[in-house]
Amino acid sequence: MAALNVLNFWALLLITVSVCNGWLFENFGAYRNREADEVALWPLPQKFQTSGAAFQLSAASFQIVHAKSSTAGPSCSLLQNAFRRYFDYIFGNVRKHGINQKKVFDSELAELQVLISSSDPECDGYPSLKTDESYQLEVDTPAAVLKAANVWGALRGLETFSQLVYEDDYGAHNINKTSITDFPRFAYRGILLDSSRHYLPLKTILANLEAMAMNKFNVFHWHIVDDQSFPFLSRTFPDLSQRGAYHPYTHVYTPSDVKMVIEFARMRGIRVIAEFDTPGHTQSWGKGQADLLTPCFSGSSPTGTYGPVNPILNSTYDFMTRFFKEVSTVFPDAYIHLGGDEVDFSCWKSNPDIQKFMVQQGFGQDYRKLESYYIQRLLDIVSATNKGYIVWQEVFDNGVKLKADTQLHVWKEKPQYQDEMARITAAGFHTLLSTPWYLNRISYGQDWQGVYKADPQNFNGTTEQKKLVIGGEACLWGEYVDATNLTPRLWPRASAVGERLWSDENVKDLGSAYNRLIKHRCRMVRRGIPAEPLYLGFCPHEYDGL
Amino acid sequence: MAALNVLNFWALLLITVSVCNGWLFENFGAYRNREADEVALWPLPQKFQTSGAAFQLSAASFQIVHAKSSTAGPSCSLLQNAFRRYFDYIFGNVRKHGINQKKVFDSELAELQVLISSSDPECDGYPSLKTDESYQLEVDTPAAVLKAANVWGALRGLETFSQLVYEDDYGAHNINKTSITDFPRFAYRGILLDSSRHYLPLKTILANLEAMAMNKFNVFHWHIVDDQSFPFLSRTFPDLSQRGAYHPYTHVYTPSDVKMVIEFARMRGIRVIAEFDTPGHTQSWGKGQADLLTPCFSGSSPTGTYGPVNPILNSTYDFMTRFFKEVSTVFPDAYIHLGGDEVDFSCWKSNPDIQKFMVQQGFGQDYRKLESYYIQRLLDIVSATNKGYIVWQEVFDNGVKLKADTQLHVWKEKPQYQDEMARITAAGFHTLLSTPWYLNRISYGQDWQGVYKADPQNFNGTTEQKKLVIGGEACLWGEYVDATNLTPRLWPRASAVGERLWSDENVKDLGSAYNRLIKHRCRMVRRGIPAEPLYLGFCPHEYDGL
Repeated sequence: MAALNVLNFWALLLITVSVCNGWLFENFGAYRNREADEVALWPLPQKFQTSGAAFQLSAASFQIVHAKSSTAGPSCSLLQNAFRRYFDYIFGNVRKHGINQKKVFDSELAELQVLISSSDPECDGYPSLKTDESYQLEVDTPAAVLKAANVWGALRGLETFSQLVYEDDYGAHNINKTSITDFPRFAYRGILLDSSRHYLPLKTILANLEAMAMNKFNVFHWHIVDDQSFPFLSRTFPDLSQRGAYHPYTHVYTPSDVKMVIEFARMRGIRVIAEFDTPGHTQSWGKGQADLLTPCFSGSSPTGTYGPVNPILNSTYDFMTRFFKEVSTVFPDAYIHLGGDEVDFSCWKSNPDIQKFMVQQGFGQDYRKLESYYIQRLLDIVSATNKGYIVWQEVFDNGVKLKADTQLHVWKEKPQYQDEMARITAAGFHTLLSTPWYLNRISYGQDWQGVYKADPQNFNGTTEQKKLVIGGEACLWGEYVDATNLTPRLWPRASAVGERLWSDENVKDLGSAYNRLIKHRCRMVRRGIPAEPLYLGFCPHEYDGL
Repeated sequence: MAALNVLNFWALLLITVSVCNGWLFENFGAYRNREADEVALWPLPQKFQTSGAAFQLSAASFQIVHAKSSTAGPSCSLLQNAFRRYFDYIFGNVRKHGINQKKVFDSELAELQVLISSSDPECDGYPSLKTDESYQLEVDTPAAVLKAANVWGALRGLETFSQLVYEDDYGAHNINKTSITDFPRFAYRGILLDSSRHYLPLKTILANLEAMAMNKFNVFHWHIVDDQSFPFLSRTFPDLSQRGAYHPYTHVYTPSDVKMVIEFARMRGIRVIAEFDTPGHTQSWGKGQADLLTPCFSGSSPTGTYGPVNPILNSTYDFMTRFFKEVSTVFPDAYIHLGGDEVDFSCWKSNPDIQKFMVQQGFGQDYRKLESYYIQRLLDIVSATNKGYIVWQEVFDNGVKLKADTQLHVWKEKPQYQDEMARITAAGFHTLLSTPWYLNRISYGQDWQGVYKADPQNFNGTTEQKKLVIGGEACLWGEYVDATNLTPRLWPRASAVGERLWSDENVKDLGSAYNRLIKHRCRMVRRGIPAEPLYLGFCPHEYDGL
């Protein structure tokens, strides 16, 4: 994907270093200079040059401004909000501006000019899989310049700029002369949070969107409902949350809540992809929607328990049509995650009506065919809303006929994910990887290293196949996680996934990653995210929560 | 230890149930009634009777008061603070008192009278290993009565009383007619926190002391210094923290901080036992105290690195004498933890002066003898301060001659801790167990169950040997833990240890424990402790932090 990869770049630098007087060049595989260690960029940019020449930034006079030739201006609230956010990150919420109109010295960086070049800066748009997130950043006096085609690249560049600023021993803010050209290796860099196994307060979700932006993630996969609870308040079917949530109003996401999450994410260049998983994982749906789930039988008597969505009733498809019509308007993203994993056939098998239907359809005893029947009708329903879809790998494994633009989400440990990625891409489908990134699974020690080493393109396949890998996703399933422990469990372990998905594939030196990541986690802590320690040590500014 | 154990008690109740009209009796092994489930006592009291008769508590009129015949009164600030704390826990910081002087109805509980019977209630004292923590609680109208010999038993009873209060569906506070006789199974019920691998802010330590009181723990084992940092500010040797802490003033515990921790713990009936581990685990000591550590050699040249405390210099013992003299006055508890674990002999072996000393002393090549030499001199120094000591099991394993009242702390996985407990008690020493309770070790799933099953008296030995087990300690070593993740990692996993050490040995039904513990953790959450979930579900009042 990268035009000029890091190793080639490094080789080129070795040739040119003698003529570039005053520049310090970085080998990404082995960080060596103090400045680079101080700033601890995470994820590492694709191309990065820095020099020992340092400029000071004054909280009283430094400004982030729209460049004169930018197509965006002060009416672009997405950028205005980002300017404020990054100013606060850099100066620690100090507000001195205007009080001290001092002279700007030669060694001082007066401003960062943000230059958006596209005729449409997309200030009011949403990011998508096709979004150009590249940017260029030149830090030099009198002004640094951040160039990007649109606001999305500018957001990534602002994060990088804020990471370049460091405090010297006197507490003064410094930034070194730097030149960066950066773009993501993968277009899809996601985090899954599960608000069904435990309800997650908005505060927790928003804090994690903040942390995602600090790590250049761009997809929030919201596994919003599941067997345990249905906190999504549907205007069309309010009984779903009224009866299916843990509590009908304290443990639900109202339409306003959902809008706030989507807008908060948009301001950070993050897509919100909601998952409404069917036909399995739907116990909570049944509480507020009669006849949606399959009644299970013992012999000829209903047991009173229910299985997956009932695939043989027209009412099921009527419900899904109305429900996904609403979902497609509530969530602006072009994709919906439709689940399709772990369908347990035992209840279907027990049900006499379903047995009859199997015979009528000529499915024999192959319940995968019944599952495919349901999924295909569902996919048609969702397609009619003009949405694309993502499904878990079982949908592919079970032979469901899929639209060419379907994205398959790999999560299982068996068969090996490398083989699954190879099969899916050989069939021409886009895929994203989660198997090595189930961060709900914890163990004692530095497990971020295994997370960091995994690579979604590390499978046997052609270049064409590799190109079908759109990225990956760190999943934090909610069985053992709620607001009390979610954030430190996820960060900085998810940061390892963030660098894997953003930086060049050759950025994989564990020592360099460790040195940068311990500083990056302290940076997150300083910004209010209780990211847990990787190992021994301390932060200059420790977490001051509980 | 228990005069009348739970199963005998239950058998007795089966006989008497017909005459005790209106009482509901609980089999501790299998909770069955809603009232008991609602209140979810944790740890379970030794003897517990409850009835369906419920009384209401009004925040406007309910009072916790000193009984007329109590030897303690309003000048007992320990109890006054506890009254406020438990009033707040019960009513959620509501302050209505005096506004509404309404009539007290028959079905209302007007007050809880706290009756201290000893001539010295110990209001200004410190708890000790010999402290009587037993209490009796009778909840009936018009007033509930909590009887205890001293304030320490009263604190345990107040916690139990607060756990008995539940909210009905209308949010009204209720308590059922109840009779409890309670006392701890073990006298030593500890939690180890490690403030060396990561500095722990006071706020974090105090919050965990709060949580300890909620679980009837009574020892805070403060592993205050280690190789990585020396945050204890010694007045005698201020360079130890000045040079050995992560930061000389932001990452230290000043004498005031230490006092505050000790007083905060005392108010909750918790002893503070500081650990100053030598001769190993002392790298940080060497930074602020010249010649304390052994210089390591490569052949005949010093390498510039240092090993354990240098055991052959008189200056070492002079230092230890002055240092432990200070420690013995700073920490009022009768015991100091002296460590003594994991001494690496390689540096001692490399040092020519030590080699000579070994020959002079006739130790041959047995460096365990050198270690014993050091430890025995240290024990004499500490004994001279009139303190008792706790040491890790290696000190016993290495054959150090120990005072009869030495307490040996078992932590190693090999040899099996059951065998070690048997050996130590066979030699007539007191012991406490930590091996199965290293809660820094994490794994995916409900690992609290294994923690809960472990029993410190489960080894082959005589009744006399079993009596030498004074209790146990949950350890949260700090390699991967700081303020960001400590509290949810410790709680409610440590609660499982809390019940094991307090309740009758027959209280071990996992189903009952699960049902009570999920509610107990929600109670901790409501009281502001971010205790993590055991598994699926929700709390009526979720954590509202990050």
